[in-house]
Amino acid sequence: MSTSTPKDPEFEARIRTSFAKQGLMKTIGAQLASISPGAVEIALPASPAVSQQHGFVHGGVVACIADSAAGYAALSLMPPGIGILTTEFKINFLAPATGDRMLARGCVIKAGRTLTLAQAEVFAENAGQEKLVAFLIATLMTITGRDDVSD
Amino acid sequence: MSTSTPKDPEFEARIRTSFAKQGLMKTIGAQLASISPGAVEIALPASPAVSQQHGFVHGGVVACIADSAAGYAALSLMPPGIGILTTEFKINFLAPATGDRMLARGCVIKAGRTLTLAQAEVFAENAGQEKLVAFLIATLMTITGRDDVSD
Amino acid sequence: MSTSTPKDPEFEARIRTSFAKQGLMKTIGAQLASISPGAVEIALPASPAVSQQHGFVHGGVVACIADSAAGYAALSLMPPGIGILTTEFKINFLAPATGDRMLARGCVIKAGRTLTLAQAEVFAENAGQEKLVAFLIATLMTITGRDDVSD
Amino acid sequence: MSTSTPKDPEFEARIRTSFAKQGLMKTIGAQLASISPGAVEIALPASPAVSQQHGFVHGGVVACIADSAAGYAALSLMPPGIGILTTEFKINFLAPATGDRMLARGCVIKAGRTLTLAQAEVFAENAGQEKLVAFLIATLMTITGRDDVSD
Repeated sequence: MSTSTPKDPEFEARIRTSFAKQGLMKTIGAQLASISPGAVEIALPASPAVSQQHGFVHGGVVACIADSAAGYAALSLMPPGIGILTTEFKINFLAPATGDRMLARGCVIKAGRTLTLAQAEVFAENAGQEKLVAFLIATLMTITGRDDVSD
Repeated sequence: MSTSTPKDPEFEARIRTSFAKQGLMKTIGAQLASISPGAVEIALPASPAVSQQHGFVHGGVVACIADSAAGYAALSLMPPGIGILTTEFKINFLAPATGDRMLARGCVIKAGRTLTLAQAEVFAENAGQEKLVAFLIATLMTITGRDDVSD
Repeated sequence: MSTSTPKDPEFEARIRTSFAKQGLMKTIGAQLASISPGAVEIALPASPAVSQQHGFVHGGVVACIADSAAGYAALSLMPPGIGILTTEFKINFLAPATGDRMLARGCVIKAGRTLTLAQAEVFAENAGQEKLVAFLIATLMTITGRDDVSD
Repeated sequence: MSTSTPKDPEFEARIRTSFAKQGLMKTIGAQLASISPGAVEIALPASPAVSQQHGFVHGGVVACIADSAAGYAALSLMPPGIGILTTEFKINFLAPATGDRMLARGCVIKAGRTLTLAQAEVFAENAGQEKLVAFLIATLMTITGRDDVSD
């Protein structure tokens, strides 16, 4: 994994501000759990509001928090004013997403000038136990010179 | 694309019942738009409740409806009592998801005994115009003999 | 699929010249089968030289011709002097690659300024019958201003 | 990463025997570099015989050794008589594959009963320096009761 010095000393505040603007995260009940340079965690309590038809947490929601964790891990290494957009991701579901809480741990694999590769592992927490339920790889593109895409 | 005869004559009712059990679809405001053998459409009105930080529809939500459309397209060809679970998907984001409504069109590429490959295209509708904004490929695994995973 | 007018009238000659420079295609015995704007086919005779341990054509070789077919489909729509590089691809294997010949049919899903999305289906031909054995999606990045990457 | 005890004490001999049957590995000049439980390395000297049109090692060849390294990492944890087949993989290309030698390092992310998730990182070696050039994630399916697919 990439261990870089953040190019924006305000990276943590920047991510918190950006996250607060994501209407979806509020809608599904997701929260920032931790932020460090190149690594971000997002937590989501399991509930019927985010379930699929078998009562598991919906794979799409697992992808939502994994994508956001990977994306913010990438953003944590970007200079001020540079935005990022996910151009593609792939997620493997390794076990049904059941438990009290889902925790997505995102980190950067390689930060590039134009494209950054990041991953996220999603763990289901159940009575204090963690189980790996999903694995995501995402490509993020850096966006420069656009005021509307600066985080 | 695969054009098969449905093995369950009640496939439409089965999909509607299953969809109604997905708490997430209600939470994000998604609705079944059409159902035919091997092809299912899901629509989602754009709103701040499903946005990411730039005001676009969150890529994870686009993935939610695309994954569900692909999955139900696969389910439409399954015999009664057989369930399906997504084992992995990959999604490419081709343009920012902005517009009045997102429409995910899922269809089956190849239905297999154990694994089915399905795709979904997601279009952003804006003032009557459609624009392709995302493309998803999903692998679905058939689940047999489990009462809790039968749709 | 995208049906665009080629921006380089010499696109066919350009692809043939580029293909001839690919040492790998010669090594594995692959050949250009057809070229049209936005769609390219590559054929590969099956042989022990490209096999995996069970005698099937190696999945990696199937990926080689699928990636090249998708990439040349993308290149067929590029202006003169613009090169492309694959930034990522995903391939699903739907059936063992057995038969006389593998045929990869590449086409463009969406041609963008920076990124192009293309797909390739690979068919195994056996006694005149075709069977879909693999499905690939690739992201190609356009490269400008580099003499060493102009095709 | 998964650190499991091998279920077949002869896993190393089994992998060497299987690798020797892969005609493709000989054709492209790839060799087994190391084998341990859940982790396998494959090396490939760069040469015009495996190049694409710009003189880089072809992305498809990078995928070949990455897929094989990930697959053999999975096989190293399988009981005797159980075969594996790749059902899908995704590869991101992070830098042009130039250098003296490519080294694919495969390891298992999660070994399951039916499906195993494995990854491979590919490094380009140049004058003693290593650079990460590609990252692959593969799903392998276990195959039981078939004499022709037992490795």
